[in-house]
Amino acid sequence: MESDSEFDLIARYFTRPAPAGMLGVGDDCALLPISHGYQMAVSTDMLVQGQHFFPDVDAAALGHKALAVNLSDLAAMGARPLACTLALSLPKVDHAWLRGFSDGFHALARQAQCPLLGGDTTRNPEGVVISVTVMGEVRRSHALRRDAAKPGDDIWVSGSLGAPEIALRLMRGDLAGNPGLLAATRKALEMPVPRWRFGRQLVGIARAAVDISDGLLQDLGHILDASSCAAELAYDALPVAPALDKVDESLRRAAVLGGGDVYELCFTAAPVRREQLMSVARRCAVPISRVGSIVRGRGLRVSGIPEAELTAAMHGFDHFRHNEAVT
Amino acid sequence: MESDSEFDLIARYFTRPAPAGMLGVGDDCALLPISHGYQMAVSTDMLVQGQHFFPDVDAAALGHKALAVNLSDLAAMGARPLACTLALSLPKVDHAWLRGFSDGFHALARQAQCPLLGGDTTRNPEGVVISVTVMGEVRRSHALRRDAAKPGDDIWVSGSLGAPEIALRLMRGDLAGNPGLLAATRKALEMPVPRWRFGRQLVGIARAAVDISDGLLQDLGHILDASSCAAELAYDALPVAPALDKVDESLRRAAVLGGGDVYELCFTAAPVRREQLMSVARRCAVPISRVGSIVRGRGLRVSGIPEAELTAAMHGFDHFRHNEAVT
Repeated sequence: MESDSEFDLIARYFTRPAPAGMLGVGDDCALLPISHGYQMAVSTDMLVQGQHFFPDVDAAALGHKALAVNLSDLAAMGARPLACTLALSLPKVDHAWLRGFSDGFHALARQAQCPLLGGDTTRNPEGVVISVTVMGEVRRSHALRRDAAKPGDDIWVSGSLGAPEIALRLMRGDLAGNPGLLAATRKALEMPVPRWRFGRQLVGIARAAVDISDGLLQDLGHILDASSCAAELAYDALPVAPALDKVDESLRRAAVLGGGDVYELCFTAAPVRREQLMSVARRCAVPISRVGSIVRGRGLRVSGIPEAELTAAMHGFDHFRHNEAVT
Repeated sequence: MESDSEFDLIARYFTRPAPAGMLGVGDDCALLPISHGYQMAVSTDMLVQGQHFFPDVDAAALGHKALAVNLSDLAAMGARPLACTLALSLPKVDHAWLRGFSDGFHALARQAQCPLLGGDTTRNPEGVVISVTVMGEVRRSHALRRDAAKPGDDIWVSGSLGAPEIALRLMRGDLAGNPGLLAATRKALEMPVPRWRFGRQLVGIARAAVDISDGLLQDLGHILDASSCAAELAYDALPVAPALDKVDESLRRAAVLGGGDVYELCFTAAPVRREQLMSVARRCAVPISRVGSIVRGRGLRVSGIPEAELTAAMHGFDHFRHNEAVT
């Protein structure tokens, strides 16, 4: 079983050639034509209790995150949110929990102008399972696809990296208890703020984009695979979350390079776009960092760290082999 | 808990007023504007192992049904299928199961021209949970909404009723083993054929429509609530599945009136449309039956059966109070 990654499964059983004019499995969102000049971007995610969240997580934070992870996929395509649906299975009717969850969900839906339009609620004695689907729109041929990177492009990252992974390790007990560090990193794990406004502004400026859900190296790897090119990253240029200053150096690098659940954007753009990007980022109040370059060839090199750490971090965050301990 | 029905929950926590031009929670599909003259119809459903299907159900049948129940919602809005997404959580990687499930899913997707464009696959040690979202399109102001019935309308039902409920009771052990009866009813439960072609043809002819997922009386009740009117049904006009001929009379009536999982359409239309409807139904090779009338007032009367049976059947199929035994 350890050899069957989530991605192999999807590719093997569920990928079929998409009809003309559509984009199927394999990017942050699917695309389908909807009207003159526009495509609909669609993304769906499933969150399983004990796998993607702790049973005692705050309900409002969970409601927020269930929508946030999907809005992040829209952001990574440069799509404007339109609407969402929610399917929810619950072991019992807990009104305080439902109130918290729905408040957290609706608060983010309101901010993102992405109203909840439909859903399904069912009983599931085994635990909470949440599935959200978001729909957005993007101008035809303008979506930020994974296969659009070109040699010579700069590689950029929004926000900062590493905090969610540290919070997760603390909460799992993989790291010795440290209340100060948990307090400083937990919000990044439980209440990520997806970059949907900034993502839309990247349309026409950036080339390829992904959101960092599985870890920078793995998600950037998707761009490299799809675009048939390589990348060189400078570790020292990566935006490390300030809370990680006092974390052991090797652990910090693992969290920055391989830690998932970040929901920042990693994108590529021609060097001629640097000033324009900085200006857009300032307008959106989103810090961005230029962290490397797309080059010809295959593979991903990171200068400034030991080779062995790079290999470990490349494994990223795969729910079918790496995520057993979140229970 | 028994007093918290699925519908109360949805209404209480997840319903917010839909923005102008959209239709939110409370119909078979949500609607959102997508282009000049068209709306997108969206529906999502979640199927939980032990609640909605038996753990040993044939994987291909399950893949078929997971999409079928959603296509049925599109049919009930008169929408043409465009595309779908799938979120799937599994306890383990079972290749034979995945092959069967994906084959069943894709076969129906191909028939309905509703390609699978995106998805999410995650581990869930507690059992299989499936969530499918379908998107379709319908001409603006032409969707077959629940609130469109008018006094004087005929009430129609496609196909036949009752077989899935009998199969379910046999498989649960609520009915004494009867291999012949199970063989004659099981396909209706496990491989329902949604009426997406016929549903589209009803646009401009029928007024209100629902699909019969929770039982005829409960689903027709949604039309009556939304349209603020009453209905009179003639039991003898209802299309009873031929396999139910030898079933005890009282049980047969309960299955016909209250049995869920049917995925036929119940719709209303002005009497002047009768010939046109019969002609469309013939063209689609879908049998239809005229079973009653919409009238002024409130409530639902069924002639030809004892009053007590009507009350029992009205409860229908609610996953939060009625469905415990499917484990």
